[in-house]
Amino acid sequence: MKKYAIGIDFGTLSARAVLARLDNGEVVSAASYDYPHGVMDLQLPCGKKLTRGWSLQHPKDYLEALEYTVPNVLQEAGAEAADVAALGIDFTCSTNMPTLADGTPLCFLPEFEEEPNAYVKLWKHHAEDQAAQVQKVARDMQVSWLKNTGNRISSEWPVPKLLQIKEEAPAAFEKTAYYLEAGEWLVWLLTGTLSRSANAASIKNFYEVGKGYAPAEFYAAVDPALDGALEQQFKGDTLPLSQCAGYLTDEMAKKLGLEAGIPIAPFMVDAQAGFLSAGLWEDGEMITVLGTSACHLLLGKENKDVMDIAGKAPDGLYEGLVTYEGNQPMGENLAWFIEHACPAYCYEEAREKNISVHQLMNEKAAALEPGANGLIVLDWLNGNRCILGDSQLSGMILGLTLQTKPEAIYRAMMEGSVYTMRSIVDNFESQGLKVDRIVAVGGMARKSPMLMQIVADVLGREVHVSAVKEAMALGAAIVAAAAGGVYPSLQEASRHMGQPLEKTYYPGENKEKYEKLYQEFWQLHNYFGRGGNEVMHRLAKGK
Amino acid sequence: MKKYAIGIDFGTLSARAVLARLDNGEVVSAASYDYPHGVMDLQLPCGKKLTRGWSLQHPKDYLEALEYTVPNVLQEAGAEAADVAALGIDFTCSTNMPTLADGTPLCFLPEFEEEPNAYVKLWKHHAEDQAAQVQKVARDMQVSWLKNTGNRISSEWPVPKLLQIKEEAPAAFEKTAYYLEAGEWLVWLLTGTLSRSANAASIKNFYEVGKGYAPAEFYAAVDPALDGALEQQFKGDTLPLSQCAGYLTDEMAKKLGLEAGIPIAPFMVDAQAGFLSAGLWEDGEMITVLGTSACHLLLGKENKDVMDIAGKAPDGLYEGLVTYEGNQPMGENLAWFIEHACPAYCYEEAREKNISVHQLMNEKAAALEPGANGLIVLDWLNGNRCILGDSQLSGMILGLTLQTKPEAIYRAMMEGSVYTMRSIVDNFESQGLKVDRIVAVGGMARKSPMLMQIVADVLGREVHVSAVKEAMALGAAIVAAAAGGVYPSLQEASRHMGQPLEKTYYPGENKEKYEKLYQEFWQLHNYFGRGGNEVMHRLAKGK
Repeated sequence: MKKYAIGIDFGTLSARAVLARLDNGEVVSAASYDYPHGVMDLQLPCGKKLTRGWSLQHPKDYLEALEYTVPNVLQEAGAEAADVAALGIDFTCSTNMPTLADGTPLCFLPEFEEEPNAYVKLWKHHAEDQAAQVQKVARDMQVSWLKNTGNRISSEWPVPKLLQIKEEAPAAFEKTAYYLEAGEWLVWLLTGTLSRSANAASIKNFYEVGKGYAPAEFYAAVDPALDGALEQQFKGDTLPLSQCAGYLTDEMAKKLGLEAGIPIAPFMVDAQAGFLSAGLWEDGEMITVLGTSACHLLLGKENKDVMDIAGKAPDGLYEGLVTYEGNQPMGENLAWFIEHACPAYCYEEAREKNISVHQLMNEKAAALEPGANGLIVLDWLNGNRCILGDSQLSGMILGLTLQTKPEAIYRAMMEGSVYTMRSIVDNFESQGLKVDRIVAVGGMARKSPMLMQIVADVLGREVHVSAVKEAMALGAAIVAAAAGGVYPSLQEASRHMGQPLEKTYYPGENKEKYEKLYQEFWQLHNYFGRGGNEVMHRLAKGK
Repeated sequence: MKKYAIGIDFGTLSARAVLARLDNGEVVSAASYDYPHGVMDLQLPCGKKLTRGWSLQHPKDYLEALEYTVPNVLQEAGAEAADVAALGIDFTCSTNMPTLADGTPLCFLPEFEEEPNAYVKLWKHHAEDQAAQVQKVARDMQVSWLKNTGNRISSEWPVPKLLQIKEEAPAAFEKTAYYLEAGEWLVWLLTGTLSRSANAASIKNFYEVGKGYAPAEFYAAVDPALDGALEQQFKGDTLPLSQCAGYLTDEMAKKLGLEAGIPIAPFMVDAQAGFLSAGLWEDGEMITVLGTSACHLLLGKENKDVMDIAGKAPDGLYEGLVTYEGNQPMGENLAWFIEHACPAYCYEEAREKNISVHQLMNEKAAALEPGANGLIVLDWLNGNRCILGDSQLSGMILGLTLQTKPEAIYRAMMEGSVYTMRSIVDNFESQGLKVDRIVAVGGMARKSPMLMQIVADVLGREVHVSAVKEAMALGAAIVAAAAGGVYPSLQEASRHMGQPLEKTYYPGENKEKYEKLYQEFWQLHNYFGRGGNEVMHRLAKGK
């Protein structure tokens, strides 16, 4: 008797697997694995240096994570291979890699060990010049799906990243049989069958459910070398999430300690998994995933053209609903602060108290007033993804004095991120989308009550937090249950397996102070982000 | 036979004494003493919290420094009391304190232990509201000396600071017999005679050589409580540096291990001591003192009205020459960075290499290009003293990315300080003052070749560094030699005892890059500092 589904969430720094009950979604065991190579943004394993904008990963880490976490969740729960009905994964997106025709990643070949373009380009890798080139063609051709991308082509998407290989590493491009989402590569490995995920393609790769990809002429117009890309690098059936992508191979079943032949779901974009685990499937419901980056996904019945968003996908997740996406950096900014700008004495104090430095900073920062003693931060340390869509922007801390303490900078960085979140929600609403309900998931939503209170104060509205710790991995397990036929649809699977809310944060006494601070932020946001002073662009280009 | 003069430099964090040969100025021994209370900007010794803008010291520290350093320089040199001809001191300025009629500092009284206004207000303490009040009266009355202060009254000067006592601590004001420069208090203690320093008063306290102080009506107009301030709180003969202030008392002679009756010079403003030790006394010569703060003093034959400077003093140092002053925070910004924003791993690396964290940052930062990987800093962590004269401005770091390393911020902070230095020099020249020669003294000038190269590149001109390590203390010893009659004038004393230059830095290949970066700085400087966006003011006031 099958009792469980397995979901695995492949994040930026680690992968987390859960074993979830099919009947009620209870997570009975979980395991996580930190990628040994982490994010490579300074150098390759061979020591070769990387320049600004590069952000790579090693696919070996994903395999190790699979082989470590799956046996672990079974063992921890005392479950057997026969108990598992299906497996699904979610992955950061767009995280892309070139492979040979047999699925071997190019970076596994000794000849490409020193070629950055042969590695996995993480979601936050920026192929800036190529994106500009793609955008120009898309606008010139007035392609219909450009309205789905907020009229912009992101430097984080597959086509610009593939084009970068062609321009910078012709030998590697020559060998690139397929250009895959890392999640697609894993599903191929698990099932032995190459397929694509409509969920990912519809929001990042110019794909419309029911209409297909951008026309072939578009690729040819971008670059003659991409003529035929749809039959070559982007080949494969593009499947909706509710359809089974294939069945676990004998070889992988052995490695993972599972039964061969169980259904595998198409991979899902990580943030979207939050909808399923929080049980959201209605018009006006928004899931906000607060992790390394933050992703704000809104469900809408109407298909509207909305500017300055990260993208929209009609029917990309649920049939009959459009998913509108806005996103931004989040935890990675705080991680930078803790690693590179938090002084020695905080590390000592955390050690003495036997807590993490993040925890210490949270405790100290919670005692401060809004504005953290006069600081304002533009949280653009990894550019602004929304609503400006400009990876050349950079971070700013304003208001420093000789009395400024580290916890004040920490709080101000957090506040800056929440101001950006508000700019995204305001942008949705100002263009006629309704935002009725916001549910937050992800590590930061559950770990930092201070952050959530700031969100409620800055947004001036209620914000709910999901009770489930491994929200994304559970979402992947729910998709697996649907794709595996346990439930007839994603909604039905989510209705049974989605988890309740744990807590609601209400706007409090600081709402008014934050309104004033947000206006300050907004003025700086527009001055530096919308042409008042192009200094950040000039500095980024070293000009 | 007298062979030596003693000079003691009272800085922001410590005092340094030298024993210098009368014939050639050679420093034969030196000793320093760190103030146990340092700078009190967060709380009083009793634990009482201080608010933004407060910066206090404890006069007990100065006494301890005297009693520690003087016997030490004698002992180290194997010199005897009989060898010492005279003693002089220089002090940070304006650093002010209230005393009883017998010279007892108010903060020594148990009743005022918890009263911040009873302590020494350090030069960088800001009595902001009171300065605005004084400035209004000065402008309304069109007082003649306002042109000497660049048409501005600084919140760091004695009259605003005294007024703050009256407004915030009436009981302490009631008991304030005298309001003294800390250097004047020490000279009083050493000689038993109360006198004032024309050198300090002419640049910070509305005093003009040959004309005297601001008229009595001015004080009365500022506040009725200050009616009579000249006969009360600011009483005492105001002496030029070349005149002996008095003779060492028996009591202090015993404590210091010196002969009673040796001449003591009036106290000198610390930065000005640099002129004497570097042997500068000509029109167009500028001394730049690079320490906790930086002070740029220019000698000019002509008495011009110059805007946006910290002040000017006709005959304030040398007869027939005007001293023009511009100043700014400097080392204190880097000290803040090292203490509060430099990560644990840098401390570890410095420990392993057995060097200071400053040294490590210097080494790493020296390897970076101009602009420190795309960063620009407004170095206003303690406000902008010149050319904006606005203590409510605050620091800004722009251009941060997830790849930003601590040494880049360190370098950018240094560059920001040098941009501010250039704004000061440009301001001198744009108003017709000539700057022919720049000599740098102070700890940072000798310790950081990187800093000096940046100065030469950003200013686009030669910059010399003095060979003498204890430049200010030696300057005080030179003044002592003149005031004690060993030489007939300050110039003569400086001619014999001043020290040669050690090194000259020339503008190099980075000059052009820095010109572009300076233009970026200048645009931000004017946007945030001259009304483009008053956000820093609003944040400082918590509005």
